[in-house]
Amino acid sequence: MRILISGAAGFLGSHLCDRLILEGHDVVGMDNFVTGSQDNIAHLMGNEHFVFYKHDISNYIFVPGKLDAVLHFASPASPNPASPTAYFNLPIQTMKAGALGTHNTLGLAKANHARFLLASTSEIYGDPIEHPQKETYAGNVDITGPRAVYDEAKRFAEALTLAYHRQHGVDTRIVRIFNTYGPRMDLEDGRALPNMLKQALLGQPLTVYGDGCQTRSFCYVDDLVDGIVRLLYSDEHMPVNVGNPVEMTILQFAQAINDVTNNQAGITYIDARSSRDPQRRQPDITRAQSLLGWEPKIQLQEGLVRTLPYFKRKLNLS
Amino acid sequence: MRILISGAAGFLGSHLCDRLILEGHDVVGMDNFVTGSQDNIAHLMGNEHFVFYKHDISNYIFVPGKLDAVLHFASPASPNPASPTAYFNLPIQTMKAGALGTHNTLGLAKANHARFLLASTSEIYGDPIEHPQKETYAGNVDITGPRAVYDEAKRFAEALTLAYHRQHGVDTRIVRIFNTYGPRMDLEDGRALPNMLKQALLGQPLTVYGDGCQTRSFCYVDDLVDGIVRLLYSDEHMPVNVGNPVEMTILQFAQAINDVTNNQAGITYIDARSSRDPQRRQPDITRAQSLLGWEPKIQLQEGLVRTLPYFKRKLNLS
Repeated sequence: MRILISGAAGFLGSHLCDRLILEGHDVVGMDNFVTGSQDNIAHLMGNEHFVFYKHDISNYIFVPGKLDAVLHFASPASPNPASPTAYFNLPIQTMKAGALGTHNTLGLAKANHARFLLASTSEIYGDPIEHPQKETYAGNVDITGPRAVYDEAKRFAEALTLAYHRQHGVDTRIVRIFNTYGPRMDLEDGRALPNMLKQALLGQPLTVYGDGCQTRSFCYVDDLVDGIVRLLYSDEHMPVNVGNPVEMTILQFAQAINDVTNNQAGITYIDARSSRDPQRRQPDITRAQSLLGWEPKIQLQEGLVRTLPYFKRKLNLS
Repeated sequence: MRILISGAAGFLGSHLCDRLILEGHDVVGMDNFVTGSQDNIAHLMGNEHFVFYKHDISNYIFVPGKLDAVLHFASPASPNPASPTAYFNLPIQTMKAGALGTHNTLGLAKANHARFLLASTSEIYGDPIEHPQKETYAGNVDITGPRAVYDEAKRFAEALTLAYHRQHGVDTRIVRIFNTYGPRMDLEDGRALPNMLKQALLGQPLTVYGDGCQTRSFCYVDDLVDGIVRLLYSDEHMPVNVGNPVEMTILQFAQAINDVTNNQAGITYIDARSSRDPQRRQPDITRAQSLLGWEPKIQLQEGLVRTLPYFKRKLNLS
């Protein structure tokens, strides 16, 4: 297949490029580098199965040649308000990537009679009351809150994708992606895992907010990409959660990170931030298991070991 | 003020034109007549305080001259699947009116340093679990359901409006409109009140689905428009519910309609439809009362009496 990936220079987009080229496909990468990084795709430049266009998918997209699939992964996605590339700090670009970007990439898929896959997110569940989250859960998103620029854009993108499927017969897929980690992730992403991994490699005590009993579920990127590729090859049109259902407390993550990095500096507890981070988010992956035969295979310790070299390089420690 | 109203030929849009002209403003009406009707604005043609442009606001908007306010009321809004103009049957146009239309009208307000008012809806609450609905309620919208094309478009539109307010300082307002009735409403709108009013005027028994104990709250259009105008004149940026909080059972509505129309044909009970209509929806109007000094004044009987001539004319009974 000849596959267009928007957001190709992002964390997930670039791994998808690698995997799909490995599977024998030709990949057309597209990114405007607002949050993506040239470093993530530098190794693909010159590859005869890869071509790249610098373009903002909120504007009309023209790509020469026939496409067999369009994967829409372009969007600011960092929830760290301190990061200049967080969706908090790019509110209108984020909403345009979700609405105009999805509209344009769906139009491209329609014109090419190509398969379409939307990268959605666990954030469509907002601050969930139901645990774990099934795909049928309607979510708990505060429309007026600062996170809404991302959450509502993705909810809109899902509804538009299903509208194109029902109205125009476009062969669509929707993946709801939960927290993911691995090489090429943004070190300033703001989530607990990269924050603590950075501290551990610098020999600092890991910061734990509150009592550390809030939980997270992190999926290693290779597992996640495998789930996405299986969904792409499937015939499933309704949303599918892809993420790691193993729920751990922040304290357990901290201990695992200190173990893997041999960090002796321990843990510092500080007051819980007044952030509106969800206390818990955990995928129910029953649908991914039964429809795609997928479940994550890489344990936390192994995932951390595979991620360390990238963090060390970024921190100039290697 | 010189005020642009998108959806000016719609039920609510056309009443807003009348009211704002009556208040001494100049109105620029815009509509593409996908769901609006020329009849609704025929009486304004030739009025020196009214100018009309036929235009689809999902496309770039150009309006000569300075605007002081932009009111975005354009969208398919009928929930009746049997109607060709229902949002179910115009899914992509509905989503474009919510996303591209809101983006374009916000851009117009920004360029003109004009006030902006978004017509949102009680549908952003979906099938609510909380009763009555406060503005803080996050709602219960099924993203994958057929109603999502309207509900998610309006949720997106609200979030984009707040993003323009916060990011670009646009002077925005958001009104969440609940069920409304009155002259110029679509007789095929599919809601219980117009259906039964039509039957009563034709001397037919009123159809009540199920046991008739499901409730509705209907606001007379003049009350609603008054609430919107007060919001426009206010400084309130966060969403405000405007609707009638008087909750009545469908059976009570049916009896009131048979009384007002002197219909002797009674009521027919038939099996509840397998529709996904919310069982209840009722605004909490505490914010409108305290911020705008607004509450509905027109009782159901009076509203029905004022609406009858329009229904009779449409049914060729007068």
